[in-house]
Amino acid sequence: MSKLVIGIDIGGTNTRLGIVNEDGEILNESSFSTSAYDEIDDYRKALQDHAAQLIKYADDRGIGKIAGIGIGAPNGNYYNGSIEDAPNLRWKGTLPLAKNMEDHFNITCRLTNDANAAALGEMLFGSAKDYKDFIVITLGTGLGSGIVVGGQMVYGHDGFAGEVGHSTAVYGGRQCACGRKGCLETYASATGIKRTVAELLANSIEPSSLRKIPFNALDARVIFEEAQKGDSIAMQAFEFTGDMLGRALANAVVYTSPEAIILMGGLAEAGKLILDPTKKSMEENVLNLYRGKVKLSVSSLKAHNTALLGAAAIVWQEPAS
Amino acid sequence: MSKLVIGIDIGGTNTRLGIVNEDGEILNESSFSTSAYDEIDDYRKALQDHAAQLIKYADDRGIGKIAGIGIGAPNGNYYNGSIEDAPNLRWKGTLPLAKNMEDHFNITCRLTNDANAAALGEMLFGSAKDYKDFIVITLGTGLGSGIVVGGQMVYGHDGFAGEVGHSTAVYGGRQCACGRKGCLETYASATGIKRTVAELLANSIEPSSLRKIPFNALDARVIFEEAQKGDSIAMQAFEFTGDMLGRALANAVVYTSPEAIILMGGLAEAGKLILDPTKKSMEENVLNLYRGKVKLSVSSLKAHNTALLGAAAIVWQEPAS
Repeated sequence: MSKLVIGIDIGGTNTRLGIVNEDGEILNESSFSTSAYDEIDDYRKALQDHAAQLIKYADDRGIGKIAGIGIGAPNGNYYNGSIEDAPNLRWKGTLPLAKNMEDHFNITCRLTNDANAAALGEMLFGSAKDYKDFIVITLGTGLGSGIVVGGQMVYGHDGFAGEVGHSTAVYGGRQCACGRKGCLETYASATGIKRTVAELLANSIEPSSLRKIPFNALDARVIFEEAQKGDSIAMQAFEFTGDMLGRALANAVVYTSPEAIILMGGLAEAGKLILDPTKKSMEENVLNLYRGKVKLSVSSLKAHNTALLGAAAIVWQEPAS
Repeated sequence: MSKLVIGIDIGGTNTRLGIVNEDGEILNESSFSTSAYDEIDDYRKALQDHAAQLIKYADDRGIGKIAGIGIGAPNGNYYNGSIEDAPNLRWKGTLPLAKNMEDHFNITCRLTNDANAAALGEMLFGSAKDYKDFIVITLGTGLGSGIVVGGQMVYGHDGFAGEVGHSTAVYGGRQCACGRKGCLETYASATGIKRTVAELLANSIEPSSLRKIPFNALDARVIFEEAQKGDSIAMQAFEFTGDMLGRALANAVVYTSPEAIILMGGLAEAGKLILDPTKKSMEENVLNLYRGKVKLSVSSLKAHNTALLGAAAIVWQEPAS
């Protein structure tokens, strides 16, 4: 009988759960709105109900035993299984979610941050199967990163390794939700490219269909579609974003000398439009020792599955420290 | 009988060898000029002669068996035991030194870069004894770094992890020996502070005893001594250097979330003069998650011993991948 895990991907908008087998197949899944819950207790109850239904599904059909629960969440800390001060979730403070789930189901539960989960998903089931040293960069609302060294996820001393989105790209630059200025994610993320479009619209007098769209309605997909139609502002926004990301990646490789960097998330779905300028900029800016050596690619997994699969994978995976 | 290792610290100027025991004591040592040898074969022969003398010393006195040879060298690659294109050494190309020594002495020989050796020295015998996640920064002619994650040295995919000195600190900034511009080590190193003094002398009209010293005669020690005497230019140079280094360290911690960062090398010998502005700048620039958590200190080991001890230690230490 196959060993199954429930993977849970907690996002600011939606929560997805799935029964995952060791081949990375999702046998059954469900989802619900994260943001519909103002109170952590109500959310936790909804999460437990959904997990219970999946456990029952596996039981009823005799498809395998649920060996554990793995959760990927914003600001998730692997060491203590808690979500800590996540700016994208409604509940503040420290939420010991892994312990809550373990107590409730009497089953092993592990939790890590969403980008680490994505990196594990890539390593076990995706583009990083053959890599022992690589970095996954998630380009969503923010910029998340999961760093793998020697086949082991890097959690660091306090479980918060990989906050590459909050390395400073421009001193005195754009205001960041973290309270600082010029963080990489204010430039290189789905939100960052929106801000870049606004800046380009301000600085140039070129006509652009993006001038008709309110800032709040802009997203990576709209900008991507306009760029594909040849809108100059949209194309420049991708160029600029790739340039900023490439510079940052050139700096990132000096730490762990990865074999590959894998981009994923909303902005990465633009494919070559983001990949090409990023690669160009990374190669131009990187130390010659690394030039031409780091494989840069877009994830081959469906973005919305990677974190779920990776969350399941943390139950099977032990950390570097 | 104690298990002994010969540690070898190859620098651009001098090569030092020592018999090291498992407590990190140097039982006997010798040294010779690296730069006196124009030909790699002559240098290799000198190195072998010195090592042979130490082996004989251990034999004659019956103090223990030499279990291996560990070498720390600029641009040393752990994986293949070679020195590759080291800008500070006279010989170009790839030198398979570990293999040469193994073949000659029929004894295990490991080689890594000098900053990695220093980090291992700190971990086994110095300030980092209690740390599993830390970074050593060497502030010499350049800026070297050794990164430890979960108690394991990070070598990366190709053995060149930790080139933090060649992360870009200022785009379009100072020319670097690597051929690029604005590398961190052009600001934060013994050479960097020299360049900063020259810049300050150019930009200000303040009197300074440093105006009497030719650029080539300036070094970290002279600047340190003048700063201690209250020379304003020298003091500003330390402030600026610390500011640049602190910014870079604030960015460095997001990758591996270290418990501690240990500074060593010529510039670190200035103690509080470099430590205080670096710490201030790091704390000001770092993401709140890490603020107040990363211990910044100056190595407690004698700088010129750390790399030798660490070089010996690589024989006892296995890599992360």
